[in-house]
Amino acid sequence: MPTSHLSKELATFASQLTIEDIPKAVIDRAEDLLVDWFGSAIAGKGARPVEIMTQFAQQMGGFSTDHLGSAEILIHRTSSSPFLAALANAAASHVAEQDDVHNGSVFHPATVVFPAALATAQTIGASGEDFLVAAIAGYEVGIRVGEFLGRSHYKTFHTTGTAGTLAAAAAVGHLLKLNPDQMLHAFGSAGTQSAGLWEFLRDAADSKQLHTAHASATGLMSAYLAQAGFTGAQHILEGKQGLAAGMSSDADPSKLVDRLGSRWALAETSFKYHASCRHTHPAADALLQVMLKHDLKPSDIAKVETLVHQGALDVLGPVVDPTTVHQSKFSMGTVLALVAHYKFAGLQEFDQHFRDVEVCAFRDQVTMTLDPEVDSAYPQRWIGKVKVHLKDGSVLEGRVDEPKGDPGNTLSRTEITDKAMRLAAFSGGATPAEMTLAINTLWNIRKQVKIQFLLSSH
Amino acid sequence: MPTSHLSKELATFASQLTIEDIPKAVIDRAEDLLVDWFGSAIAGKGARPVEIMTQFAQQMGGFSTDHLGSAEILIHRTSSSPFLAALANAAASHVAEQDDVHNGSVFHPATVVFPAALATAQTIGASGEDFLVAAIAGYEVGIRVGEFLGRSHYKTFHTTGTAGTLAAAAAVGHLLKLNPDQMLHAFGSAGTQSAGLWEFLRDAADSKQLHTAHASATGLMSAYLAQAGFTGAQHILEGKQGLAAGMSSDADPSKLVDRLGSRWALAETSFKYHASCRHTHPAADALLQVMLKHDLKPSDIAKVETLVHQGALDVLGPVVDPTTVHQSKFSMGTVLALVAHYKFAGLQEFDQHFRDVEVCAFRDQVTMTLDPEVDSAYPQRWIGKVKVHLKDGSVLEGRVDEPKGDPGNTLSRTEITDKAMRLAAFSGGATPAEMTLAINTLWNIRKQVKIQFLLSSH
Repeated sequence: MPTSHLSKELATFASQLTIEDIPKAVIDRAEDLLVDWFGSAIAGKGARPVEIMTQFAQQMGGFSTDHLGSAEILIHRTSSSPFLAALANAAASHVAEQDDVHNGSVFHPATVVFPAALATAQTIGASGEDFLVAAIAGYEVGIRVGEFLGRSHYKTFHTTGTAGTLAAAAAVGHLLKLNPDQMLHAFGSAGTQSAGLWEFLRDAADSKQLHTAHASATGLMSAYLAQAGFTGAQHILEGKQGLAAGMSSDADPSKLVDRLGSRWALAETSFKYHASCRHTHPAADALLQVMLKHDLKPSDIAKVETLVHQGALDVLGPVVDPTTVHQSKFSMGTVLALVAHYKFAGLQEFDQHFRDVEVCAFRDQVTMTLDPEVDSAYPQRWIGKVKVHLKDGSVLEGRVDEPKGDPGNTLSRTEITDKAMRLAAFSGGATPAEMTLAINTLWNIRKQVKIQFLLSSH
Repeated sequence: MPTSHLSKELATFASQLTIEDIPKAVIDRAEDLLVDWFGSAIAGKGARPVEIMTQFAQQMGGFSTDHLGSAEILIHRTSSSPFLAALANAAASHVAEQDDVHNGSVFHPATVVFPAALATAQTIGASGEDFLVAAIAGYEVGIRVGEFLGRSHYKTFHTTGTAGTLAAAAAVGHLLKLNPDQMLHAFGSAGTQSAGLWEFLRDAADSKQLHTAHASATGLMSAYLAQAGFTGAQHILEGKQGLAAGMSSDADPSKLVDRLGSRWALAETSFKYHASCRHTHPAADALLQVMLKHDLKPSDIAKVETLVHQGALDVLGPVVDPTTVHQSKFSMGTVLALVAHYKFAGLQEFDQHFRDVEVCAFRDQVTMTLDPEVDSAYPQRWIGKVKVHLKDGSVLEGRVDEPKGDPGNTLSRTEITDKAMRLAAFSGGATPAEMTLAINTLWNIRKQVKIQFLLSSH
C-alpha cells in the first residue's frame, strides 16, 4: 500500500481490523467506554434539546408501535431506522457533559461512535464481538482525524462534530463489512459533510447536541451509501480541496496513520469524572488536592488562580455569568466553587447549586492565566495547576499531572457502573433495575451472538 | 432593528416576507424557476447516485403503501416524511446539471430550496401562495449568504452545499411561520451544519448529489427544530467562530442584507440551457454565434480558443479526458464539440455522443485562456469570448455578454415547459401525460389552496 495515500491507508485499517489484531486490554477498555457511554446516553432524558431532537427523529420516521423500527431510541423506549435512532441517541449522549474525551485530539468519541454502531448492530444483528471491533475502528479513525486537523481547527470548529462523521462512518462501515475501497468512499461522503462551529457557545445555544447527532447520523449514512455503491472523494482528508484545506491551517497528515495497529488511541481516552467541560477538570482536581491536604473550608479561601492552556481560555473565557446549568459547566469559576463546597461537580451539584449565593461569590474569585508549561504540554497532557490564596494571606500551590479519569488515573469498573447508575437516577431515564440489567448485558457484550435492544423488547 | 446584527436582519426578512412585498414580476419568475426545477428533479430518475440516495431515504423511513408519508418522493411515486423526501428530491435535482444558477453567488438555489419547501408544504397543507413566498425567501437568503461567503469560499467549498442549508431553512422556516427569533435559531442550526468540499471533483465522485441532499434536509431539520424550541447561535454567519470565520477569507458582511426588500436576487437567477457546468455556457454560446453567423461546419474549424474567468479554469481545468457522461459536462472541449455538431449540448447529446470520435477530436482542439476582462466581470456577469481559428487560416471572434438563460436572455414559458418535458422524456421519470398535468398544476400554483402531490395520489 502506498503510504502517500493516507486516507486509503486509514480506510483499509478500519475495514480490515479483526479482534485478533487488538490487545485484550484495549478490548476491555472498549467495554469500559461502552458502559460509560450508556450512562451518558440515558442522562440525556428530559433535556430540552435532546427531547426536541428525539421527537424530530420519531416524527420523521413512520415507525409506530405496530410497525417497529430496527434500532432502539434509548430514552423513549421506541424504535426507528438506524439513521434516525443514531440521530436521537447521539443528541442524548453529549448533553450531560459526562461522556468520554480523548485529550490529544480534544475529541469526544463515544457520543458519535456508539450511537451509530449500536443502531447498525441492532439492525443487522451483529455479534457483540463485531460491534466492539467496529467501535474500536471508529475510535482509532476519529481520534487520528482530530489530531490531524490540529489546534487551528479546534479554534473555530467543534472537532467532535467534524471528525465525528469519519468516526461514525468507520464504525458503521466496519459493521457493514465494507471493503477498503468502499470504506474510502464512505470516508469521502462523511468528510464532505463534516460540520460544527463553536459560535453557539457565545449564546449558550443547543448546537452541541445537534453536532453530535449530525455527525453520528451522517457518518452512518455515508457507510450505508458506500455499501450501495455511492462514491466519494479519494483524498477527502488530505486533498487540495479536502477537509484540512478548507478547515485547518496546521494539519499534519502523518497523524492520520500514526502507528496504526500498534498504538491504540482508544486506550488513551479519558473518562469524565466531573460533569463539566473537560477543560475545567485539571484545575478542579488541583484545587481539591490542596483543600484535602490542608483541610480547608471554602470560607478559608480568598481567591483561586488557575494556570491553564490556551484552549481553556478560548472555550471557557466567554462564560462569565452563566445563566443555565449547561452554560455553567463551561464556567471555570462555577466548577471550582462546586468542588470547593461539595468535593465533586456532578449533575446534582450543578443542577441544585450553580446559582447559590456562596457558589457565585466563590466563582467570581476564580481567575484563569495562561501558563507556558501547561500550554506546551497540551493537548497530549492536561496538567492542572492552581494557586490558592487564603484569607490569612498565605498562598498554596496545587498540581495534578493526570486529572481523575485520565488513563493513568482511571475509573474502576465499579466506579464506571456507579457513574452510569447515578446518571440514570438523575435524569430518570431508566430505573435502577433496568440499568442493572442493561449494564450487565454490556459488561458481557463480547459473548453476545446478536446485539439486542437494551431497554425495550424488540 | 440594529443593523449591526446582520444575521438577525436577514432572519427577520425571511420570517416576515409577505406576498404584498414582492413585485409581480418576481412572483412570475419564481413560478418559472419552479417549473424549471421540477424538470430537473424528474431528470434524476435512474441516475445511480440518485437512486442510491432515494433508496436510503425510503429504507430509513418506516413508510409503506399502507402507511403513507406526508411528502412525495418524486421519482419513485412513493412518500415519506418531509425530512427524507427532501433528502431524496434534492439529490435528484442536481445530477442532470440543468438546474438554475445565480451568477453572483455561484449558487444553485432551486435544487436545495424547492425540495425542502415542497416536502414541507405538502406535509402541512400550505397554500400555493405561501409556498411561493417561502421559496422566494429561500432564494433571497441563500443567494446573499453565497455572495457574503465570497470567492475564497468557493475555491474549496461547494457553495450550494454550504449556503444551501440556510436557504432551505429560510424557506421551510417561512412555511412553518417561525417568528424572527425562531428563524434566527433555525439559521444557527443550519449554518453550523453547512458542509460540502470540492475534493470529489478530482475523482468524479458522487458528492454533488450528497451536498444538495444534505443541505436541503439539514436546512429543513433546522427549521423544524427551531419551531419546537431548539436554539442556535445568534451570529452564525458573521460571528467570531461562525461560518465565515471558519470557511472564508474574503467574506463581506454587507452582502448579507444588500438591499433587502428592494433588490430581488431571485430575479437575477439564470436558467441553464445547455446540460453542462455553467462555466462552459458563455463560450458555448459565443462559438454558436460565430458558427451561425458565418454558416460554419465543424470541419471548417481548426481550433477554438476560449477566453475565460479563473473559476472556469479551477473547475474545468482538471477535466482533460472525461470518462463518464457526468464528468464530460465539466469538459469545455466536449461541450463546445457538441455545440459545434448539434447546436445544443443537451442530455441526449451528452449521453449519445460524448465519446464519438469526431467529438473527441474537436474537444482536443479547444483551449482555455484566462481573460482579464472576462475575469474582472465575473461573477456578476458571465461573458463568453472565443477565437475560432479556421482551417483556411482566418480567425473569427465571437462574444456574448449574456449567455442564453441569463435574465437578459431568458427562456420563455414555452421554452421552460419544453425543457422540462425533454428532461422527463430523457430520464423516463414521468410520462408526457403526467408531466403535462403536473406542469399545468405548477403554472397555476398561486391559486392552489393546499399543495398536493404532483405525480402520485396521496
